[in-house]
Amino acid sequence: MEIREFQKLIEATYFERDSARGLEGTHMWFAEEVGELTRALRRGNEEELAGEFADVLAWLATLASIAGIDLEEVAAAKYQAGCPRCGAVPCECP
Amino acid sequence: MEIREFQKLIEATYFERDSARGLEGTHMWFAEEVGELTRALRRGNEEELAGEFADVLAWLATLASIAGIDLEEVAAAKYQAGCPRCGAVPCECP
Repeated sequence: MEIREFQKLIEATYFERDSARGLEGTHMWFAEEVGELTRALRRGNEEELAGEFADVLAWLATLASIAGIDLEEVAAAKYQAGCPRCGAVPCECP
Repeated sequence: MEIREFQKLIEATYFERDSARGLEGTHMWFAEEVGELTRALRRGNEEELAGEFADVLAWLATLASIAGIDLEEVAAAKYQAGCPRCGAVPCECP
């Protein structure tokens, strides 16, 4: 699945509600999910990890939509040509 | 670009270094980037936002790689069929 396709899917499912809540309120949900991912990483349960990684990606996508950002475009622009600092793959930054 | 392709790109660029640093240290970098995204959202500068969204996605991908999670697989599994709670698109949860 393309990054853009996932962002569109999350928009179709949640954009109306999330944009009505607004950037600040939606950021609170995102931050809560980041906390849940942190807890799952600490615990190491694979099923919990799978769900929490999916949730953080979904909330990141909805935040990007509210902010008018195309996640795939910005991710490719920054990382497709290698490390943004040194340009190498693998990164050779000191 | 597919989610899986982006995760593989980040692995090619950073996995050796990030996995050597370990999950806990890499989580600190991820959390720092989340903070930078929060600041960019507060400021609303589009160029800064683009870079910070890309960075959070990249650090999320590298954390997933260290944890043995395929981001595309877990994202599709949880969200492709609609809202995980109510099953609808758009979400109809109360």
